[in-house]
Formats: sequence, C-alpha cells, structure tokens
Amino acid sequence: MSAPGLPMVVPAQDLPERVRIHEVGPRDGLQNEKSAVPTEVKAEFIHRLADAGLTTVEATSFVRPEWVPQLADAEQLFPLLGDLRGVALPVLVPNRRGLDRALALGARRIAVFASATESFAKANLNRTLDESLAVFEPVVRHAKDEGVHVRGYVSMCFGDPWEGAVPLHQVVRVCRALMAMGCDELSLGDTIGVATPGHVLELLAALNEEGVPTNVLGVHFHDTYGQALANTYAALEHGVTTVDASAGGLGGCPYAKSATGNLATEDLVWMLQGLGIETGVDLGRLTATSVWLAEQLGRSSPSRTVRALSPKDQ
Amino acid sequence: MSAPGLPMVVPAQDLPERVRIHEVGPRDGLQNEKSAVPTEVKAEFIHRLADAGLTTVEATSFVRPEWVPQLADAEQLFPLLGDLRGVALPVLVPNRRGLDRALALGARRIAVFASATESFAKANLNRTLDESLAVFEPVVRHAKDEGVHVRGYVSMCFGDPWEGAVPLHQVVRVCRALMAMGCDELSLGDTIGVATPGHVLELLAALNEEGVPTNVLGVHFHDTYGQALANTYAALEHGVTTVDASAGGLGGCPYAKSATGNLATEDLVWMLQGLGIETGVDLGRLTATSVWLAEQLGRSSPSRTVRALSPKDQ
Repeated sequence: MSAPGLPMVVPAQDLPERVRIHEVGPRDGLQNEKSAVPTEVKAEFIHRLADAGLTTVEATSFVRPEWVPQLADAEQLFPLLGDLRGVALPVLVPNRRGLDRALALGARRIAVFASATESFAKANLNRTLDESLAVFEPVVRHAKDEGVHVRGYVSMCFGDPWEGAVPLHQVVRVCRALMAMGCDELSLGDTIGVATPGHVLELLAALNEEGVPTNVLGVHFHDTYGQALANTYAALEHGVTTVDASAGGLGGCPYAKSATGNLATEDLVWMLQGLGIETGVDLGRLTATSVWLAEQLGRSSPSRTVRALSPKDQ
Repeated sequence: MSAPGLPMVVPAQDLPERVRIHEVGPRDGLQNEKSAVPTEVKAEFIHRLADAGLTTVEATSFVRPEWVPQLADAEQLFPLLGDLRGVALPVLVPNRRGLDRALALGARRIAVFASATESFAKANLNRTLDESLAVFEPVVRHAKDEGVHVRGYVSMCFGDPWEGAVPLHQVVRVCRALMAMGCDELSLGDTIGVATPGHVLELLAALNEEGVPTNVLGVHFHDTYGQALANTYAALEHGVTTVDASAGGLGGCPYAKSATGNLATEDLVWMLQGLGIETGVDLGRLTATSVWLAEQLGRSSPSRTVRALSPKDQ
C-alpha cells in the first residue's frame, strides 16, 4: 500500500489530476545565497532536477550582475543546459536589455517580476508600481513577438512588510495589467509568508471574477509562518494546477525577517503523491539532489521531508 | 486590517467557528527531552500557557518513573497547578496504578494511550493490542465512575515504522473499542507524520460511518514531512474542532527517525487566526512563552512562526 519513503496514496475529492511544479531553486533559491555557487554546480543542480522529473526549472536571471552577483554567470550557465530536452527553462528578465541577453542565448521562456505594492516596487525595483509596469510592457510585447512564453510574477500579493495587508483590488489591478500585456501565466507570490487559506481562496475568486481564469494562475508560497502547504492545499481545491516550489526549501526573501523561505519541493511532492496527484517527480531522486546541494552549500536543508528521508541527520 | 505579528483575517467557507487546542507541550513535548526539566520550570511553563489563553493543557504523565524519568515529578508538579481555574489539565495514565496516583492528587481529566498497530503496542507498551485494550478497560471504567473525563489516544493511525500503511479497519476497531469502554473523546495520532489530506479525510469518514461521530474526534499531527498543517486544514473542513499541538513545536516521537515532532501551536494559531476561527489564544504571549522555554532548554524552537515573530534569530 505504501513504499518506503513514500506516502500511502489516498485521493481526495475534486482536486486536480495533475500539478505542474515550477521549480525555482536554481534562481529564487541560489540568488539568496550569501556567496555565489560555481557555475558547474548550478548546471549539475539543474540537470539533477530534470533527472528527478521536474519539467519546469527556472534556471537563472538576466539582471545586472552588480545587482545579483550570485546569478552573474547567466551567460556561462545557460549554454551548459542545451542538452536538456523537454524541460522548460524559464529565466528572469528585469528589462529589455535582460530580454535581449536571454534571447541571444536562445531562451524560449522568460519571467518578469512585478509587485502588488508600491513599497516593494520601490525597494526591489526602485520604481513606482506604474513605472515598473511601463518598463515590462515592451519587454513582454517583444517576447511575445518572438514567440517566447512569458510568466508574470506578482510579489507581495497578501502582505507587505511596510504596508501590512494588501488590498485585493491592488493585486487584481497588477494581474490584469500583466495579462493585458500578453503574459501567458501569472505566479501569485506570498513573499513574506503571511497568507492563510481563506485569504488565498478570496484572492483566487476575486481574480476569476475580474476575468483572470484559474488556468493561468500559479501560486508561490513561503513557509515563514509554516503556512505554505496548507495554502497550497486550499489553492488545489480551487483548481490551481501550477505550484512554485524550491528544492530542499532553498532560498527566501532578503527583505523578510526570517531565513525561512520557499515551500520545499519535497514537502509539496509528499503531499501531492499522497493525494494521488501526478507530478512526474521521483521523490527519492529529488531528495538525493537536495542532500547533494546541501553538501555543496555546507549547510542542511530546511525541508522536513529531506531531513526525514536523508540517510543521516544532515 | 492586520496587526503587526498577526495574519489578516479572511474566513473560508464551511469551517468551524471555534477550535479547542489541546496543548500537549508539557507532557508530549517534555517527555521527549533528553534531560528532565526542573519541576518549577514545568509549572511556570503551564502557567504561561494558561495565561496565553490555552484552555486545555496536558500537564504530565503518571507512568512508572523509570520508564519516563523526564516526567517522574508528576506528584510534585501537579499540586503546583492548583491555582489554575478554568483550565483543563489532563494527565496521561498507563494503568490502574497511574490512575490511582492521579486521582489521589485530584486530577479530573485523564488520557490513555493506545495504538492502532500491534508493532507499536509491543514497542511502546510491551503488550499485544488486545492486551493493552484489556488493561485500559477497567482504568477507563473506574475513571468514569469517579466522574473523570477520559481521552483515548490512538497512535499510528496512518503509518507505522514497522508495518507501513495502517489499514483503516484496524484504526476503526481500536477507536470503537475505546469509545465502548467509555472514553469521552479520541485523539487520532499520525505518530510518524506520514499522512496526507486524503488519508485524513478517508479515516474521518470511515469512523463516522462506523458510529464514531466527528465531535468526539481530535487530530494529532506530526510535522515530520511538513504535512501537519495541511492535514489539519483538511480535518477542519470535515468538521473537526479539537486539534492537538505543542507550544514551539516541542517534542517528537522517540521511535520516529527525524527529530521533527509535533505540530507547533503557534503555526496552528497563525492559520486559525487568519481563518477567523476562535481559539482564545494570544499569539504574542504564546510565542513569548516558547521563546522563554527555548532559553530554558538551551536550544531554538523549530516552529516557523516562533522564529518569524521572535525578537532575534534564536
């Protein structure tokens, strides 16, 4: 009924049959490491994630190297991933210059990173919310002209460290603007991890009502208050089929107080596997990858599942 | 809309209005500490938990001192709690001798600790399952004759480290036997933390079908694989209104491989507060209590919420 290292499979009613995990570890995780990881380690990390069955792995970011030195090797890294067939490798681009660099290397999927709040737009992008949307508009349009798939991140969808609770209409406005530009999908970020399930369901319903359908929506939860998986479960009940997660729970937000970061992909896969929801991911291989990366980084993974399944206490 | 250190309140549909948290930290948490905590510290811990608004605090255990030396001071501790009015203070009793000790001190609530599997009954109690139920039967009957409230713990309800997945009918059988003896409530334990939400819902439905109503059922999840809060959310959707948790995430199962233990009360309260479900708990006071206890124990709390809310990185 259950294999060692895997949960027993008991489906629940009215949940999706399949979930696409958008793995953000190599980009969102590693960009928050204190020191840069060698390019070859990044390439091996991404290859191992693909081997574990992840079909979407956000690979790197084409921001100005001074801004995110941890990912300054995007030009060196991206060509090392050319042999990965059938794996989507989106890259983050902040502006037209970043898009051109990504396109020159053959990237076929990009992501732009917007904020639902003025404060975070100012802190992260040094622009007002409308100024940042105005910068993204020609980037998204040009990407679409080139036939490139575009994801729009919306950060601070639930709470903001400066502004507190974020009004729904503000999130809806930014989401609609990104869709109107031509984004193919959105990722709703709880950047500081404060959301609870009712808040998640309320935002999803508000977006649906304002013409943003569930099938373009992904969710991106942080485990700062331990809520990420409960929020994910609520989102699945609403019909969401794209969930962001980070292998081993790597990463976090440099603006959030706690070091606790992204939902760990392993904890997510444990739940989805138990629910009989297909992901294509081999949990054993994925855990081995996170244990290997933790060794490279010289510190243990915060993922509960990685700790429970790893051969020794890391 | 939200106060600092508290989530924004957004109710979800069809959830209970109120949840009773059964706090297990002083018993289930401290019994798993390597060395015994001084009696005065335990008494202060319980007083602080009551001050934080917890209405049920499992105080200690009347087992043989050689078996659980960490709780060998039950006779000294219990009288120190006499001034706690309006707070239920259940104590664990393994047999008639333990019950007599508890009754002699004026305990008005007891708990017995059964297992859903033969392997754990053997490992934990050194008896077969039926032998252990036979031991509990006169204990529960005598307690009821004395007008004492009885909780029945059922451990290993979902998975067992030796047997793997646990068949539903086995859990149902033990639950029905405990109810037939006269137990007032049951606590369904996922002792090794392997359950996922579909499994939880299936067990609750099976129990209802076999005559065990939801209003006598509490859930007791462990966070070994990070699933505790998602499982709790599913249980709330089913109508469960009693949830076990441990302040600061204290404790664990000595038989489970990982050190990760009980659902942290703070992580639970964050979710319930966000959902607008009343608990009576003051999250700030509770977190301060866990930070204080962590200082007494000389190590940090594993609770995400405690870490996020504590004034410095513990």
